[in-house]
Amino acid sequence: MATPEKIRNIAEKIKVRVQQGEKLVVVVSAMGESTNQLIDLAYSISGNPKEREMDMLLSTGEQVSASLLSMALNGTGVPAISYNAFQLEMVTTKTHNNARIKDLKLSKLQRELETHDVVVVTGFQGITDEGQITTLGRGGSDTSAVAIAAKMGTSCEIYSDVAGVYSCDPRVEHSARKLEYITYDEMLELASSGARVLHSRAVEIAKKYSVKTYCASTFSEERGTYLVNNIPEWLEQPVVTGITTDPNQMKVTLSNIPNDTGLISRIFIDLAANEVNVDMISAVNDNGHSHLTFTFISGNYEIVRKTLNETLKGIEGWKFGTNEDVVKLAVVGVGMQSTPGVAGRFFGALSKDKIKMLATTTSEIKISVLLHKDESEKAVKVLAEEFGLLEAD
Amino acid sequence: MATPEKIRNIAEKIKVRVQQGEKLVVVVSAMGESTNQLIDLAYSISGNPKEREMDMLLSTGEQVSASLLSMALNGTGVPAISYNAFQLEMVTTKTHNNARIKDLKLSKLQRELETHDVVVVTGFQGITDEGQITTLGRGGSDTSAVAIAAKMGTSCEIYSDVAGVYSCDPRVEHSARKLEYITYDEMLELASSGARVLHSRAVEIAKKYSVKTYCASTFSEERGTYLVNNIPEWLEQPVVTGITTDPNQMKVTLSNIPNDTGLISRIFIDLAANEVNVDMISAVNDNGHSHLTFTFISGNYEIVRKTLNETLKGIEGWKFGTNEDVVKLAVVGVGMQSTPGVAGRFFGALSKDKIKMLATTTSEIKISVLLHKDESEKAVKVLAEEFGLLEAD
Repeated sequence: MATPEKIRNIAEKIKVRVQQGEKLVVVVSAMGESTNQLIDLAYSISGNPKEREMDMLLSTGEQVSASLLSMALNGTGVPAISYNAFQLEMVTTKTHNNARIKDLKLSKLQRELETHDVVVVTGFQGITDEGQITTLGRGGSDTSAVAIAAKMGTSCEIYSDVAGVYSCDPRVEHSARKLEYITYDEMLELASSGARVLHSRAVEIAKKYSVKTYCASTFSEERGTYLVNNIPEWLEQPVVTGITTDPNQMKVTLSNIPNDTGLISRIFIDLAANEVNVDMISAVNDNGHSHLTFTFISGNYEIVRKTLNETLKGIEGWKFGTNEDVVKLAVVGVGMQSTPGVAGRFFGALSKDKIKMLATTTSEIKISVLLHKDESEKAVKVLAEEFGLLEAD
Repeated sequence: MATPEKIRNIAEKIKVRVQQGEKLVVVVSAMGESTNQLIDLAYSISGNPKEREMDMLLSTGEQVSASLLSMALNGTGVPAISYNAFQLEMVTTKTHNNARIKDLKLSKLQRELETHDVVVVTGFQGITDEGQITTLGRGGSDTSAVAIAAKMGTSCEIYSDVAGVYSCDPRVEHSARKLEYITYDEMLELASSGARVLHSRAVEIAKKYSVKTYCASTFSEERGTYLVNNIPEWLEQPVVTGITTDPNQMKVTLSNIPNDTGLISRIFIDLAANEVNVDMISAVNDNGHSHLTFTFISGNYEIVRKTLNETLKGIEGWKFGTNEDVVKLAVVGVGMQSTPGVAGRFFGALSKDKIKMLATTTSEIKISVLLHKDESEKAVKVLAEEFGLLEAD
């Protein structure tokens, strides 16, 4: 949705589908850079705009896209109408800038589908029960689309500038392989580890309601990737499906805090209360004191710092250190569950190349490590080779 | 509301008022050229966008302004919150692009004024009973502001790039005098004749509910103009208060139509049904046929042409001619009612300078003439002198 020409182009593609007899709900995001432009505008006016007002501002971006796409569809003869989240009663929680969808009332949407072939809906936004406008955070349009599909019991297609899900980032590793299928669980692990094809909340909803979801490029005809419950049996099941890296991580080290599990759990409860997701926690005890390490998204630095200062108020001698030069790397695959020795191969491959691991966590289908930033590319290459993730030349 | 700097500037002015103990409802229009930019965007996508989708699109402009002004106010320490017309249930008729306000539910606005010093409200827009977004047409923000003031029983101040109401257009006649007071009736006649200080619908509401209204410049400290029911008695009452010209007029001549009052009234009923305002009607009969002349706003040409073709379908030999090179000039003054001979002075002044009048209409407080475009400036000068509307040097 970057330019008027692209919007007309999308309308033509939708028209083909309508001519084949389909009725569609099309969820749109804002045009190109318009969200960033609105954010810049806000910060040119106030150094610290309220999140509630940011949502009033940003939600206009999707409304512009929705009305323009509807006009483009009408222009090609397709009966279409646009609606914003407010009008469709897409009810969310009250957390401005990062709200979660609570309920969708579909009656209006379904009524409009009786008289229109296409209903264009603003993604990324909602309203609270009190009628306040909220936004769902970055990638929120994916979440809106999957949520509507879930509630309507239909399938969902997500079009973006990424042509599907790859075994690893094609910008880093050119021989990355595009996956034809990926399971919800794998995609969830990849998305939460930084792969940006699909927002992890969207994947959670797709998994919960088994929404058949397809990710492909808006403008190429290239085949994309299907999200499924299980990889079709006739496909060879790889042990590892994908590798992903997330450079937007920061590591914090708290030293010299009392060795008190009550206190340590309070730290994480307080961080969670401030909506900070922490990961890769490790704690070391030393003469009655604890040293605590964990990672979080760099953007949360201010709130982490503030929360820790409050939680640790009155405690003497504690120290706070951060490291931004880190990358979280994860390998993901449902095949791990039934294949022993994956961790051994993983650590073996990294240590053979002398890549230093700063922290590690594992789940049933994922192994994550924290690495120095400058070793991340090498690590992806080594692991992609080890687990056979590259295109055969 | 043209730039971030101007928005901060407005916030500072509002802050001064708040510090003096006032609580304010601030109605905003869209930033600078943003409405025109959105219109251009729409037409780059569709040659004939639906009015309903245009309203979805254009209403975002005021929402951007409202959230930004609220951020600017918060930034200076003023407790402020922004609301759109949808949230405040500003209910209008269903005529997209030109809706009329039906009802304002003030409970939410009043509740927010208990906890905020300023509530910033989007002007120019409303919702229908069915939850569709509407806009009020050009100048609609004035109408929103006066309507809110009327319902709340408060006074209203309108700030724009015009410093008040002048005896004639200061761009045409540099010695035009700024009026300290003008009556609602005079302002209504001036506004409907093309003076663009204040939308005539806003004036209608101000008059109906006796809203004390003040028009002044956003950025100068110059004293503006008060709209009042009666000019204060201690002021000398002029016969003519102002002269205004409207170049956006088109004259149509229908010749050779049957001399049938039923048909002629049907023409005007059909035009009114299509929301075309006609003015300066004159009809001449000639051998059982009629020749009909009237004026309308140039922008309505297509709809006038289409309406006439439908109404006169089946009638043979009728002809249609238009003239765009016309200007409607009006002199207005409540003093006319009690002063005989104004029309004589008016026509005398024009004829002395050989200015040709193409059509004339009069009301109790207004005399209008249709002139050739190239005689309009001269006519303003002659009449301004005749009625003493210029600043004494």
